[in-house]
Amino acid sequence: MSDSPSGSSHEEDVAAALARLRHHVESSEFHAWAGLELVSVDVGEVEVALPLKPHHLNPGGILHGGLIATLADTAIGLAVRSALPADRTHVTAQLDVHFLERVDHGTVRAIGRAVRVGGKMAYGEGDVRDEDGRLVARASGTFIVLPERRRP
Amino acid sequence: MSDSPSGSSHEEDVAAALARLRHHVESSEFHAWAGLELVSVDVGEVEVALPLKPHHLNPGGILHGGLIATLADTAIGLAVRSALPADRTHVTAQLDVHFLERVDHGTVRAIGRAVRVGGKMAYGEGDVRDEDGRLVARASGTFIVLPERRRP
Amino acid sequence: MSDSPSGSSHEEDVAAALARLRHHVESSEFHAWAGLELVSVDVGEVEVALPLKPHHLNPGGILHGGLIATLADTAIGLAVRSALPADRTHVTAQLDVHFLERVDHGTVRAIGRAVRVGGKMAYGEGDVRDEDGRLVARASGTFIVLPERRRP
Amino acid sequence: MSDSPSGSSHEEDVAAALARLRHHVESSEFHAWAGLELVSVDVGEVEVALPLKPHHLNPGGILHGGLIATLADTAIGLAVRSALPADRTHVTAQLDVHFLERVDHGTVRAIGRAVRVGGKMAYGEGDVRDEDGRLVARASGTFIVLPERRRP
Repeated sequence: MSDSPSGSSHEEDVAAALARLRHHVESSEFHAWAGLELVSVDVGEVEVALPLKPHHLNPGGILHGGLIATLADTAIGLAVRSALPADRTHVTAQLDVHFLERVDHGTVRAIGRAVRVGGKMAYGEGDVRDEDGRLVARASGTFIVLPERRRP
Repeated sequence: MSDSPSGSSHEEDVAAALARLRHHVESSEFHAWAGLELVSVDVGEVEVALPLKPHHLNPGGILHGGLIATLADTAIGLAVRSALPADRTHVTAQLDVHFLERVDHGTVRAIGRAVRVGGKMAYGEGDVRDEDGRLVARASGTFIVLPERRRP
Repeated sequence: MSDSPSGSSHEEDVAAALARLRHHVESSEFHAWAGLELVSVDVGEVEVALPLKPHHLNPGGILHGGLIATLADTAIGLAVRSALPADRTHVTAQLDVHFLERVDHGTVRAIGRAVRVGGKMAYGEGDVRDEDGRLVARASGTFIVLPERRRP
Repeated sequence: MSDSPSGSSHEEDVAAALARLRHHVESSEFHAWAGLELVSVDVGEVEVALPLKPHHLNPGGILHGGLIATLADTAIGLAVRSALPADRTHVTAQLDVHFLERVDHGTVRAIGRAVRVGGKMAYGEGDVRDEDGRLVARASGTFIVLPERRRP
């Protein structure tokens, strides 16, 4: 995604930024409520998991499409965020989800990847898979890149 | 959407079908957990509401995009289901959501509409609005139409 | 879309801007080659027509999906352009087209509308209809808004 | 994508089917007019090329988004068609294109892949790249699978 100047101080900065991103997400009430777990956070690639509970299933007994979208949105959005410079943030402009298989049990995982990160716009994609590795959904998203608003 | 034979028995059938659809959704564990409320169910048009709680907000303090997708998916899917003949059901193939405004409080509403319902495929659209009527998101979905599997 | 200061000078400016936009498009080699006709250009709404020729049809004998996308992209993009301030331009980030009916003759028309125009992002939608008014496709697009690069 | 019975007669059938598909496309007036070239046709993967001409460029001097959509639609649709059984055909329900880089010269190529092919629905994806291998666009499409109508 970018040329990485060598040297331990840069690597420490990246590690610290990823740790802050992880803490930011894991401390949120939404993620605890939804049951999302952050599996891994790297620059440009993030994995999120959802161990299915009965309340995640739609009236037909399969994982609700809105939660598949939530998994994809979270994984792709974080992957884009992890690939942005420290002084930039993003807003999701658009998310497109293709539902390919039904799933009704086990842990469902989404891997999000930043495919293109520019100064004004970013684009990412994600896979959602069930425990057996079946491709449950494919998703793609468009993001607006903005200067980070400083928090006091 | 379809030719409507006049006569009270047809109208009673439609009213009974809509009541069954409403009961089907309202008795689901997902809708209670998510906090979704079914505002109105007509043939080809369904309104769903989500009174926002702190756990619906993302780490940035605004309604999580996955829940906007959940609202849209639910409203559009039910609108398509309400427009199908009694012996048909549907599966969501694809959902596309455009995020237009941020929202962080009040009750958010989605109106879903069945735009085209054919024998093999259906297409619907939805608006998501906040309490002040601002357009928070626009969504569209593609659905596969299938024979209903009879339940014993 | 914006507050319109009254007064004839503003109206003249808008009329001149729309005339320039129309000229810009109509003088392009692409539009002549594709067979596109600009029917109307207003602020935030543009209509484009394509009188079908045999070479517009796919091997199955119906209007090629790529040309439906071309009609929608052109109408929505111009509608967004017409709604931007004079010192701004746009780049298409994403286009989503839903194909609803087949068409194989006559003139096909696309109406594009700017739904939301902000300082960083714009969103528009379009209808594609055949001569009988049947809805052939629905489309939506996301646009990045940028400062206009001055041409010498 | 499918169980492949071994034996030369099956391989000959597949080769003959791909040759028919290639002929079907190459003999169409649309492809000659648009300037599309079929580079390769395999089961589930098709490559299409467009050597750019001045009339392919939009008024801003870059490849028109509608033609990028045409390349993607053609490559993905043919990839899905090549992966279907002989007695099945498909109709495009939806196409989503993300525009990532501008291109204004050389030959642009689209590779389409069938990602999931079922009895009722298929899903495919495509890359559009310029001569230098830059990713110009990513696209995805939903297809309805239907029994082939016999032609007399």
